Amino acid sequence: MDTKKSIQKYLEELSSNSPTPGGGNVAALCGALSTSLGVMVCNLTIGKKKYLDVEADMNELKNKLSSFIEKFISLGRDDNEAFDRVMDAFKLPKETDQQKKLRNEAIEKSTLEAASVPSEVIKNCHEIIPILEIISKKGNQNSLSDSGVAIAITAAASDGAFLNVLINYSALTDKQKAAELLVQTEDLNNEIKEEAQFLLSEIKSKIRGN
Amino acid sequence: MDTKKSIQKYLEELSSNSPTPGGGNVAALCGALSTSLGVMVCNLTIGKKKYLDVEADMNELKNKLSSFIEKFISLGRDDNEAFDRVMDAFKLPKETDQQKKLRNEAIEKSTLEAASVPSEVIKNCHEIIPILEIISKKGNQNSLSDSGVAIAITAAASDGAFLNVLINYSALTDKQKAAELLVQTEDLNNEIKEEAQFLLSEIKSKIRGN
Repeated sequence: MDTKKSIQKYLEELSSNSPTPGGGNVAALCGALSTSLGVMVCNLTIGKKKYLDVEADMNELKNKLSSFIEKFISLGRDDNEAFDRVMDAFKLPKETDQQKKLRNEAIEKSTLEAASVPSEVIKNCHEIIPILEIISKKGNQNSLSDSGVAIAITAAASDGAFLNVLINYSALTDKQKAAELLVQTEDLNNEIKEEAQFLLSEIKSKIRGN
Repeated sequence: MDTKKSIQKYLEELSSNSPTPGGGNVAALCGALSTSLGVMVCNLTIGKKKYLDVEADMNELKNKLSSFIEKFISLGRDDNEAFDRVMDAFKLPKETDQQKKLRNEAIEKSTLEAASVPSEVIKNCHEIIPILEIISKKGNQNSLSDSGVAIAITAAASDGAFLNVLINYSALTDKQKAAELLVQTEDLNNEIKEEAQFLLSEIKSKIRGN
């Protein structure tokens, strides 16, 4: 996505009837939001006397997480482009049998690509959850709610991305080709959701105990 | 929040060690994102021959939803301001007994206010879920994944906001004052999460059946 755009402009374009940005792009943006929130908790831990013993860990986790912000932004861009390619394929001529064949092949190929982008979003969400878990446990406990928000938004980003894998998968003629992708993605998504639910319940108990 | 800011600038400020924007602001922004996505599905339904019978409904739902975008943005702004007021209260002088008393009162008052903003986010999420439900059922079925993303992000926004109610509540000396707010908010949040889970499971089945 074009991150130079203002939030207002993004919301306007999202609300409009233009095909992109859509849900896949929002899922990727939510990945960037939760990752940034995780980096914030690292920054609010580093340099604090109380957390000197975890300073090295926090620096490492911060560096790891930071690279994911750019990945999610880039996946948001990929999602828009993949969707545009599906739309372009549908616009191909379909007068002759040869044209129909080429059009169907183009639709199939671009739809498969459009399924693979949200699948990457899910893989990245799956990688950041264990990082966010450590941050929530070892990082600044005054920011425990922020770590929790990051975890909740990551799970929603993953589930949102899964809906996009699913809708593209369902549109395929040859589902066999993407069957493995779907199963893998669904497993990762379920794992993320279960882990997030567990962590959020732990975080809520901890905040209540404060 | 200042929506004239670019997404990149927002993500940078979020990642930084400045206290705002934080998790409460992200929760409100996610409310605005899911609402905008709901409006998009209305716009992708209105004017389509296949959906002429629901056009009036979609126009009504679109108008209803649109007003929530501004509400969430305004709550994001309130969240930043409320947090700044808590920080200001902590900076008050605490040399004399009278100063300590005033400082404690200011901390207590601003913390209670800081709990009420995310509670409003949850109330608004609770109001948009039934609207998103109708949109997902009656709206353009090619955008069913978008309706689903909107529902998933709304539930995460609500749960994220609840963590912010909880952490502020836990910081209060006189918890009695906010006990009712906490219970009400928790009930609404649980309702939203259950409903979202149910709707998302329905949406996934429906997409698979396509």
